[in-house]
Amino acid sequence: MTPIWLKNIAVFLTFVAAIIQPANAADALPKASADRMENRIKSLAQFGKNVDGGVDRVAYSDADLKGRAYIISELEALGLSVHIDAAANIFARREGRNPSAKPILFGSHTDSVPGGGNYDGPTGVIAAIEAIELLNTANIQTNHPLELVVFSNEEGGLVGSLAMRGHLKESALSVVNASGRSIADGTNFIGGNIDDIASAKVSKDKYEAFIELHIEQGGLLDEEKLDIGVVEGIVGIGWWDVTIDGYANHGGTTAMDNRRDAMVSAAELTLAINRIVLEMDGRQVATVGRIQAFPGAPNVIPGRVEMSLEIRDLEQSKIDQVYAAIENAAAEIAARTKTAISFAEIDVASEPAPTDPRMRKIIESATQKMAYSYRTMPSGAGHDAQDMVHIAPTGMIFVPSVGGVSHSPNEFTTPEAMAKGADVLVHTILAIDDGALDK
Amino acid sequence: MTPIWLKNIAVFLTFVAAIIQPANAADALPKASADRMENRIKSLAQFGKNVDGGVDRVAYSDADLKGRAYIISELEALGLSVHIDAAANIFARREGRNPSAKPILFGSHTDSVPGGGNYDGPTGVIAAIEAIELLNTANIQTNHPLELVVFSNEEGGLVGSLAMRGHLKESALSVVNASGRSIADGTNFIGGNIDDIASAKVSKDKYEAFIELHIEQGGLLDEEKLDIGVVEGIVGIGWWDVTIDGYANHGGTTAMDNRRDAMVSAAELTLAINRIVLEMDGRQVATVGRIQAFPGAPNVIPGRVEMSLEIRDLEQSKIDQVYAAIENAAAEIAARTKTAISFAEIDVASEPAPTDPRMRKIIESATQKMAYSYRTMPSGAGHDAQDMVHIAPTGMIFVPSVGGVSHSPNEFTTPEAMAKGADVLVHTILAIDDGALDK
Repeated sequence: MTPIWLKNIAVFLTFVAAIIQPANAADALPKASADRMENRIKSLAQFGKNVDGGVDRVAYSDADLKGRAYIISELEALGLSVHIDAAANIFARREGRNPSAKPILFGSHTDSVPGGGNYDGPTGVIAAIEAIELLNTANIQTNHPLELVVFSNEEGGLVGSLAMRGHLKESALSVVNASGRSIADGTNFIGGNIDDIASAKVSKDKYEAFIELHIEQGGLLDEEKLDIGVVEGIVGIGWWDVTIDGYANHGGTTAMDNRRDAMVSAAELTLAINRIVLEMDGRQVATVGRIQAFPGAPNVIPGRVEMSLEIRDLEQSKIDQVYAAIENAAAEIAARTKTAISFAEIDVASEPAPTDPRMRKIIESATQKMAYSYRTMPSGAGHDAQDMVHIAPTGMIFVPSVGGVSHSPNEFTTPEAMAKGADVLVHTILAIDDGALDK
Repeated sequence: MTPIWLKNIAVFLTFVAAIIQPANAADALPKASADRMENRIKSLAQFGKNVDGGVDRVAYSDADLKGRAYIISELEALGLSVHIDAAANIFARREGRNPSAKPILFGSHTDSVPGGGNYDGPTGVIAAIEAIELLNTANIQTNHPLELVVFSNEEGGLVGSLAMRGHLKESALSVVNASGRSIADGTNFIGGNIDDIASAKVSKDKYEAFIELHIEQGGLLDEEKLDIGVVEGIVGIGWWDVTIDGYANHGGTTAMDNRRDAMVSAAELTLAINRIVLEMDGRQVATVGRIQAFPGAPNVIPGRVEMSLEIRDLEQSKIDQVYAAIENAAAEIAARTKTAISFAEIDVASEPAPTDPRMRKIIESATQKMAYSYRTMPSGAGHDAQDMVHIAPTGMIFVPSVGGVSHSPNEFTTPEAMAKGADVLVHTILAIDDGALDK
């Protein structure tokens, strides 16, 4: 039992700390607890857990609903006031000293892909809870209100953040995911109100800033043994359906030098794509993930091949440059192989989403302050942050994924790595609260 | 009206011709009639004709049955005695002067693939009928009996000729084709007797020789403007299922130099196959006709690619040599792309079937005698002749396919080209009858 005089001293010190903040508020913070974060990761992992050690916590499933209820109970236990918007995004508010100051928003998502892991999404939410935990422990009241957000249905197309941006399409509402529920029904199922979806849209001057912490989902930080990735932005994505037309013919009777083999042309193009992207300076990537030859019989020279082309980069101009080089190569290959190659662009509406340069500096400073190692890097995967860049100054913090594994039960981030991320997150929040965006 | 004295002279001359054969029997032959052959092609094309100008005369269909009835009526009108064996092969016999001499067998098939053309198969049967027509016209009785054969269900796996070889498998009998009938039911439907199928097997000393005339189904003769192809044999076929294992990963977050992309490896292998086969001396061919990438999403680096490999050549040793070179290249590609490439051989049981060298010479001589242009060449496609090489000295005559088109309503061979083929066929028959095989 704690002696009464010790309790009094603690109360007094807390009072002193409150008086002298924000000057040294950050200095008063303890470090994030790896154990506490790991325990919360394990608790959340119970909802939708599967035999592979991962989760099937697809948005709108019973497991999703239960996982969200667990998170809400944790948030309420920390003294936050929780509300769910019409898009089923969860918001948990911690009041600041200045009621007219714009809230600082931070968070991620808790839904998973089918057969997903325990870290893609949850790590950011648990780190956000840990930030609140640390502020509570240090008894720090910020100037700005703080809002923790758990976006709804990230994996099914960034539904929650698109709604906040006012960009959720009417046509998307009927899309059914692995839960068996449509976006409309599912949103209502987990506490939203699809009839009032327009109310989820937020104005551009609502938030002071937005910060998302997320696992990298690539192997760069793990490979380079770095603690933190300061995300420069979410790459844009260009998609094309590529069709190669040759001439289907008998694989036995048609001499090799008399063929117009669409598969040979497709193979040349695949290697040209790879070569072009590798030889160009930068971190652009391109992938041929899908391919089919027609008619598709072992003894028939393919008359047609259909394949996909995806190009990603942080700069739209680089995507355009890569595509132009691929188009040029395709023209040469088509002429040489006597085939026709055509590209049909698919509208995936995913332009590059650079983070705010000031936010990157603030995250860098917070990382340096903690003496953690870091690098700047793009995010090759999509995140709710790519919608949030249109709403508020946005920053993103990556923590390492062991082996770069993602969307798999084998997805793993160490408790220590998560804790370092949470440290950077909370110090970033405090720096923004201290007006770092205006400095 | 022909004056009676002219008719008498004609009868007298025919009598004289009969007396002085076989010394100049061949010299007495008129040339094949392009018109008559074209008319028979058109008549047969009525059975199973489709809107595309081709035929759906799949074996065992009503159209097949009717087409065969038409051919039988033509054969009987020419004075031949027709019988159908247990495998539903049609045999039409023209007696020779020497009842103990072995019959000379010649013919092809009348069934088509679904959506097939009017020349693949029928050309050989109509040319065989034309040969009989010419012998009748010239009133030539051969020393050997002649037998014209119409093989059953060639397109469905050389059923008739396999039965003659005694190699039709029990397991094949239940295979149902596009007619809706199994090989067992279909054989009975068109006049065979599946319960007595063993009786269709013929002994190796039954026939003096076998000759098949067929359209080339490739573009070589047409391109080189040659009249006749003297077939060196039917190529053997090797089939493999090729599996390339890489590592499936996120197409956005995985750097280009950190990928184990099964599709890039598959593209390298496809080009290596093409290059190896092109650079080696000879007429070997290899085809990648089927390919699939897994998981098959545009934004996921393929972790696995499955594709087919087919190699054809007239020499098994060449097939082995090509495969060995491909395996070597695959090992290098696998190491360089950090993937694993494995080959699983598929048993298609199609070894090379060289024609009899004496038969090639006889066909060449007959072609030279007619002053027709020709070349020797392999058959890249399969034919009943590949079974017949195991039964009798076998030769094969190719006539040009315009544009090399085959298994298509656009399949076409000119009447003149067919007639030249029939000329070579009948002169080949007469040379064999004259003992050319023993010279």
